[in-house]
Amino acid sequence: MNASSLQALIDDIVAATRSRCDEGAVADYIPALAKVPPDRLGMAIATLDGTVLRAGDATEPFSIQSISKLFALTLALRREGESLWRRVGREPSGTPFNSLVLLEREQGIPRNPFVNAGALVITDVLCQRFLQPERAVLEFIHGLLGRTDVAIDAGVARSERQHSDRNAAIAHFMRSFGKLGSQPATVLDAYCAQCAIAMSCADLARASLFLAADGRDPLGGSPVVDALAARRINALMLTCGAYDAAGDFACRIGLPTKTGVGGGILAVVPGRMSLCAWSPRLDANGNSIAAAAAIERFAAETGLSIFGASVA
Amino acid sequence: MNASSLQALIDDIVAATRSRCDEGAVADYIPALAKVPPDRLGMAIATLDGTVLRAGDATEPFSIQSISKLFALTLALRREGESLWRRVGREPSGTPFNSLVLLEREQGIPRNPFVNAGALVITDVLCQRFLQPERAVLEFIHGLLGRTDVAIDAGVARSERQHSDRNAAIAHFMRSFGKLGSQPATVLDAYCAQCAIAMSCADLARASLFLAADGRDPLGGSPVVDALAARRINALMLTCGAYDAAGDFACRIGLPTKTGVGGGILAVVPGRMSLCAWSPRLDANGNSIAAAAAIERFAAETGLSIFGASVA
Amino acid sequence: MNASSLQALIDDIVAATRSRCDEGAVADYIPALAKVPPDRLGMAIATLDGTVLRAGDATEPFSIQSISKLFALTLALRREGESLWRRVGREPSGTPFNSLVLLEREQGIPRNPFVNAGALVITDVLCQRFLQPERAVLEFIHGLLGRTDVAIDAGVARSERQHSDRNAAIAHFMRSFGKLGSQPATVLDAYCAQCAIAMSCADLARASLFLAADGRDPLGGSPVVDALAARRINALMLTCGAYDAAGDFACRIGLPTKTGVGGGILAVVPGRMSLCAWSPRLDANGNSIAAAAAIERFAAETGLSIFGASVA
Amino acid sequence: MNASSLQALIDDIVAATRSRCDEGAVADYIPALAKVPPDRLGMAIATLDGTVLRAGDATEPFSIQSISKLFALTLALRREGESLWRRVGREPSGTPFNSLVLLEREQGIPRNPFVNAGALVITDVLCQRFLQPERAVLEFIHGLLGRTDVAIDAGVARSERQHSDRNAAIAHFMRSFGKLGSQPATVLDAYCAQCAIAMSCADLARASLFLAADGRDPLGGSPVVDALAARRINALMLTCGAYDAAGDFACRIGLPTKTGVGGGILAVVPGRMSLCAWSPRLDANGNSIAAAAAIERFAAETGLSIFGASVA
Repeated sequence: MNASSLQALIDDIVAATRSRCDEGAVADYIPALAKVPPDRLGMAIATLDGTVLRAGDATEPFSIQSISKLFALTLALRREGESLWRRVGREPSGTPFNSLVLLEREQGIPRNPFVNAGALVITDVLCQRFLQPERAVLEFIHGLLGRTDVAIDAGVARSERQHSDRNAAIAHFMRSFGKLGSQPATVLDAYCAQCAIAMSCADLARASLFLAADGRDPLGGSPVVDALAARRINALMLTCGAYDAAGDFACRIGLPTKTGVGGGILAVVPGRMSLCAWSPRLDANGNSIAAAAAIERFAAETGLSIFGASVA
Repeated sequence: MNASSLQALIDDIVAATRSRCDEGAVADYIPALAKVPPDRLGMAIATLDGTVLRAGDATEPFSIQSISKLFALTLALRREGESLWRRVGREPSGTPFNSLVLLEREQGIPRNPFVNAGALVITDVLCQRFLQPERAVLEFIHGLLGRTDVAIDAGVARSERQHSDRNAAIAHFMRSFGKLGSQPATVLDAYCAQCAIAMSCADLARASLFLAADGRDPLGGSPVVDALAARRINALMLTCGAYDAAGDFACRIGLPTKTGVGGGILAVVPGRMSLCAWSPRLDANGNSIAAAAAIERFAAETGLSIFGASVA
Repeated sequence: MNASSLQALIDDIVAATRSRCDEGAVADYIPALAKVPPDRLGMAIATLDGTVLRAGDATEPFSIQSISKLFALTLALRREGESLWRRVGREPSGTPFNSLVLLEREQGIPRNPFVNAGALVITDVLCQRFLQPERAVLEFIHGLLGRTDVAIDAGVARSERQHSDRNAAIAHFMRSFGKLGSQPATVLDAYCAQCAIAMSCADLARASLFLAADGRDPLGGSPVVDALAARRINALMLTCGAYDAAGDFACRIGLPTKTGVGGGILAVVPGRMSLCAWSPRLDANGNSIAAAAAIERFAAETGLSIFGASVA
Repeated sequence: MNASSLQALIDDIVAATRSRCDEGAVADYIPALAKVPPDRLGMAIATLDGTVLRAGDATEPFSIQSISKLFALTLALRREGESLWRRVGREPSGTPFNSLVLLEREQGIPRNPFVNAGALVITDVLCQRFLQPERAVLEFIHGLLGRTDVAIDAGVARSERQHSDRNAAIAHFMRSFGKLGSQPATVLDAYCAQCAIAMSCADLARASLFLAADGRDPLGGSPVVDALAARRINALMLTCGAYDAAGDFACRIGLPTKTGVGGGILAVVPGRMSLCAWSPRLDANGNSIAAAAAIERFAAETGLSIFGASVA
């Protein structure tokens, strides 16, 4: 498909999916997120030649929340390499993203880097490397975008930190098993700030393009991560990227995705493109209903699926 | 890669991987399996043009065990279509394949068709459609192969049934939630027989080729399943096909796989080929160590991965 | 208190508690139990001198269900002695009576003899000692009563066995851990028959009187069990006798009790008496609402409590 | 038994039990506790007439740890009355004292006041009533003893607070369910200080004497708590007072007990006396081996058991 037919496609998808923006509920576990206008819907595609296509509210920044785990993981993998896997597993959890049950059974080693426990371990790794890990994640994103105008929403970060008891429980729990090097409060400060980064669909699609290109930014420069690491990140997105609906997403969409409670969903088509959709209302698993519908429709219309034989 | 370079590659892989046949232990939970010669190693590839390449012990039949779940699932999906998903989930379980814990939490609905509970539900579905479900699975395999010389090993089936208390517990447990239509004994008879089907690497690669071809057998005839169903099966293999090591397999191998405690591992390269490796000794998760090593090496050497951008 | 004031007291309690017979629901997990007239309420006391006092429907037989676990445990302890505790624990479970979760964690050793798993192990022990364990339990009760007119309700036993999938799951599960010597079907036949014994409040109070007398039937003969065993049975009743409401019963009633889903509740006042109340409607834990209210009132009015200093 | 025969009995028990002081290991989860001389063994009895008998190291203060939960609960019950049970359950947990698993299932309501979660809720209740809850507990103990020389060991309190990640996890977890009114840090400060109160066997036996006397201090004054509350505390001690060995203690000892990882065990004989034994080395459940042996022997020799008919 060329750029103009892709543009037409996502325009159509946004138009057809608007009706689903009514379903579900905006995340309300922190007051700052609950204030987002719920009727937004955006979609963007970044293709390997660097083109970025936009539809609907694709340029409006929103709170990326758990999508930040993807950038933090990539940064940690760059720094630590394979030894990172001694601190966090790579298996789907079979339990909600914020559960402590498996953590108790597995003595403080989180199942994967995308459950909250795993993301806190990743932040802990970054705390040992950087004085301000959230700035390191932000600057990493700046580097990926070639721009420095992406920022942390301080109000969201503060609100998030004030309502971080569940994550504090997880952090203290891991520390009680000797699995957290820094103080929980330090890790939580950085983690809440990182989740409060605001980005648009267009920026998220562009910033994650290296995952579609075996770790190399297609527009040049040195690799972001090596090909093996990029593939592993895609594999983790596929098996663990959509909270406790990862299996359902794999069946419905067939692409590596990472979702966030801000309503964003990022998806990767290896060898082709990266895409992102956003709409604030969530289902019971914490995934955006309209954004998931938009990406599912995109996959169905193009036939793009890592599990399929046909090439669009 | 052409056929001769693929042949050279799998010959090399089998030679290089022989040394790993010492690691792990043959499944001993049923006496009949414990008698298999442990030093076997075979590998086979079926490409879309129908070519089947063989290396090592690729033509020696072995007990396919849980790989049979793949054929049973496909047959059930053909018959039931999408309504099948009302009876079984599509999420990874985060627990060992024979755990009852999640089943209790989720009131008798198994997490996916590849944990034992889910496979028993699939057999139950087949019990409602066929008088002898294990014959139906066998004949389905005959149809895929275009041959009728694949058979159930009656000794293994009997031994398996005599040691099926854990699966009997699961079956009765689901029935106590009203989630099993047939009597547990009926379901267990069929399930144990189906697991005792004996096939070689070459036959397994050939029989699963439709999964690499969007559900259509490349050598003609009507589709085995539609493209969407084939992709979903691949997605389920990726997220749930390797017991509680599915995430690790996705990271290491990057292909949909289904493993069995007989030591077989089947893998699908969508759009390209299906492959199978076999060696009896297992790791703690119940996956063959040497067969996994062979397939991992194959993926590394060819660069084939559903998560990668490059094309070999 | 003398017999006539005790008689007046239980007459009053039955009259005052009738209004609570409306609350809750009759057990409906087996059809035969669902047919019991729900408005019944009886109460009986057996004192150490052998007097039996009756109020309301105290002489109407009902299905004793889990109260039979008490007699089976006593019989098994008589035969096995302390070695019985190698097969079953003595700790409260913190989970519903038919849960399999702890059984998985604890590798097939039930937490205590009153959860279903533990009761099935007790029946398995009896299966190894008696050809017809349910007859052995019945004859043990006949011996305690000095009469042989107590019987198994064959209709209830049959209905129970037809709806025993949950218990079959538990039995097969324990056998998969090597913790059940007999075939699950054999154990379940005996267990379901034992639960279907029909007795009245008056008979239950009389038959359990040895528990109030350090194991010795106050009207003579050899001890039923030794004092230590009798005390342990009382301790198990206190900590585990009321399903997942044992702690609440200990706080509200303060006496060792054993409840059954037939609506019976047996209570022991060590050194004084044994008592039983019955009414079919149950709360969510499976305990009779009106029978619990009657016994709670009895304890409050008399001041009898194993946790209290005063003597009535 | 009169005082001199009781004195002779506990002297004998201490002498005979010394040999068991070698078994087990001193609690080492906080450095300050690990320094306690491990060979200590003391025992004391307080009878209803106010006599206190001492044997061995009965007057040496030790860290009362979880035994403090008993005094905190009593104080909270005095202040809150029955409404306290809206915030904490009364059921045994079936899981280790510091588990988070049940807390997740039960949405932040602890199973009972003696698991750590429940004790933290009790401290939270006291935080809402007192500026310095640990001082309130201490002064409550002073009142029970009629002396003010019992104190918090500041070194132990500090060490405990520095190693309180597990309890911090529990506190934040409950707060995430909206079940903790104060800040976790505030609750933890008070809780760690309360656990660090140092008392001797003699003082603990004397201070808990009201539990043997239906809530009234036998030497006069107003009741500590009413009879119903005192009985409920005894019931909770019996069902939940010895961590995950409560059932075993009920069978072996047959008295309400409360244990602490400092090695102390307090036991109540309703209507008779309160007693305490202490020895630092613990079993895997966190209960003192020698102190449990001493109390078990006391119960066996005297025949005192709340489950028994005989009177010593």
